[in-house]
Amino acid sequence: MAELPDEPTGWMSDRELQHVRGQLPVVYVNVIPVRISPMGKVTNVGLLLRAYDGAISRAIVAGRVLYHESIRDAIVRNIEKDLGIGALPQVPLSPTPFAVAEYFPSKGAGPFHDSRQHAVALAYVVPVQGPCEPSQDALDLTWLSPEEAASDDVAAEMAGGQHHLVRQALAHCGVLL
Amino acid sequence: MAELPDEPTGWMSDRELQHVRGQLPVVYVNVIPVRISPMGKVTNVGLLLRAYDGAISRAIVAGRVLYHESIRDAIVRNIEKDLGIGALPQVPLSPTPFAVAEYFPSKGAGPFHDSRQHAVALAYVVPVQGPCEPSQDALDLTWLSPEEAASDDVAAEMAGGQHHLVRQALAHCGVLL
Amino acid sequence: MAELPDEPTGWMSDRELQHVRGQLPVVYVNVIPVRISPMGKVTNVGLLLRAYDGAISRAIVAGRVLYHESIRDAIVRNIEKDLGIGALPQVPLSPTPFAVAEYFPSKGAGPFHDSRQHAVALAYVVPVQGPCEPSQDALDLTWLSPEEAASDDVAAEMAGGQHHLVRQALAHCGVLL
Amino acid sequence: MAELPDEPTGWMSDRELQHVRGQLPVVYVNVIPVRISPMGKVTNVGLLLRAYDGAISRAIVAGRVLYHESIRDAIVRNIEKDLGIGALPQVPLSPTPFAVAEYFPSKGAGPFHDSRQHAVALAYVVPVQGPCEPSQDALDLTWLSPEEAASDDVAAEMAGGQHHLVRQALAHCGVLL
Repeated sequence: MAELPDEPTGWMSDRELQHVRGQLPVVYVNVIPVRISPMGKVTNVGLLLRAYDGAISRAIVAGRVLYHESIRDAIVRNIEKDLGIGALPQVPLSPTPFAVAEYFPSKGAGPFHDSRQHAVALAYVVPVQGPCEPSQDALDLTWLSPEEAASDDVAAEMAGGQHHLVRQALAHCGVLL
Repeated sequence: MAELPDEPTGWMSDRELQHVRGQLPVVYVNVIPVRISPMGKVTNVGLLLRAYDGAISRAIVAGRVLYHESIRDAIVRNIEKDLGIGALPQVPLSPTPFAVAEYFPSKGAGPFHDSRQHAVALAYVVPVQGPCEPSQDALDLTWLSPEEAASDDVAAEMAGGQHHLVRQALAHCGVLL
Repeated sequence: MAELPDEPTGWMSDRELQHVRGQLPVVYVNVIPVRISPMGKVTNVGLLLRAYDGAISRAIVAGRVLYHESIRDAIVRNIEKDLGIGALPQVPLSPTPFAVAEYFPSKGAGPFHDSRQHAVALAYVVPVQGPCEPSQDALDLTWLSPEEAASDDVAAEMAGGQHHLVRQALAHCGVLL
Repeated sequence: MAELPDEPTGWMSDRELQHVRGQLPVVYVNVIPVRISPMGKVTNVGLLLRAYDGAISRAIVAGRVLYHESIRDAIVRNIEKDLGIGALPQVPLSPTPFAVAEYFPSKGAGPFHDSRQHAVALAYVVPVQGPCEPSQDALDLTWLSPEEAASDDVAAEMAGGQHHLVRQALAHCGVLL
């Protein structure tokens, strides 16, 4: 998740957070925002376009869980941070994620990679019903069909292994993989 | 689930269905209807009051999956059958259930029992947002707090082991067990 | 799962079963057999080679849940049927599947297809530790690396959409998709 | 999880760890160790007896995930720490937990409580096959039947809300709740 900007840091300064990131795994939520039909079927997947270190890549919604923040609150806060306050997310009923993504700072330690830190990300698929607009950190938000979102072309535009999570999310929702 | 009335029988007559029920496990959906807060927290659990063979018991929403019917469609149809067409269910994103309940016709074969049949029930927690009214087969629908729904008193009023499923559903949603 | 031979039919004759298959969804288990490292990491995926109607295809372990049979018993029986009695499966702790595959008899109704029937298959990943030999219905059993099992080449050799399930199983186990 | 002794601290001194614990949620694994039948059915639940601040309580296996440690490795290391190196755990195939327990430092913020820290614990049921002996930090290890483990008496002897997790684990495994 190296492409992501820093999140609000709770009671920690950026310098402290940077120090801690070299010593402890950090709890994240990873959210795949989707549009659904009235029957609960995924019709579109929302991917952010981000610029980072001169490169442009697509990304899902992601961010830290803060001290004394519940997972549900972290999901809502990070969706509002990335998609705006009008997104109207359908917050998951259960804190149990559909997958856990382990981002390691060294490449090749697993499918997920984040050069900044070791992050343990709880992953959720979250339908959003309202109008979304990418926050200042993101250049754009694109709604793709499940087929496009799972394609090799889009995978090539995602960083840190997040395309694996998008595909797993679609499979979890019963959509073609 | 012996307390449940027969469902629409697809292309089978009641007699055929009765015959098949002695020969094959039957696919069911079990739905725990809930009211939730805007933050996705379960605030109430809906239980039906049913009369069956002279006894009155509480029950969750349950019914068969019909031939060529998807699980999602079966969830919606059975909710409308038991709670009315105004219930406005939030259909699950994934067909993967939070639990599978195996109802056996002989008592003591497991926690779940249905004298009529061997049923394999896929269980889901489904938020309903609209007004609910019990169908003609149910005497009443009561919205209980999670604490009441998980209490021993309410467990004693449920048949077939369904109180186990209610408690597991609450635990799955992060509510006290 | 059209490529699969008929399973033992409980108390039903083949003719009865064929009749019922046109009227009710049938409960199946789908098992992806794997070899694992001592640390629980999937190292190999076992796929069967089957001949059916003159065509040869790869398949996972699959079979019906019989009347009054528990899911756990059905998993073990179907593994022994397809992989032999020496397979020594690590039976899943929980009857909750990692995925549910809905096989419809009409093509295009979803990712999974079975011309014979509407099957609702509960899917499990099951490590086997003993020597495996394919039963008389299967021509061969091949142990593939996760990369091979998830490849487009192998996908093209599988029928009924089962390659989706293999890929989802690998993603569920934290192996590259 | 206030009753638990400190774990190995990676590259952090105890003082640093204490500091960080007031600023970031800490990633934990929670493991319910079980004995199973050859058919995968839970026959016994292992609970530790711990002394902490003059009080004695029962506890499940728990510990931090260290920097650059995978969840699987953390599960094995913490089982060996609490149950000894002969325990022979059956490491979970998937890093996806059956539940997530959010331990908050303030009482009443949820079902789980840990006065030392905000911990996000990924929970797993893990069969152990070898002889177990509690480490020096634990006074004893007791194997209880599922009924005993889920009883109110045992719940009263557990701290931090962990009895909820034991009951949910048993329900997840299809054992009476």
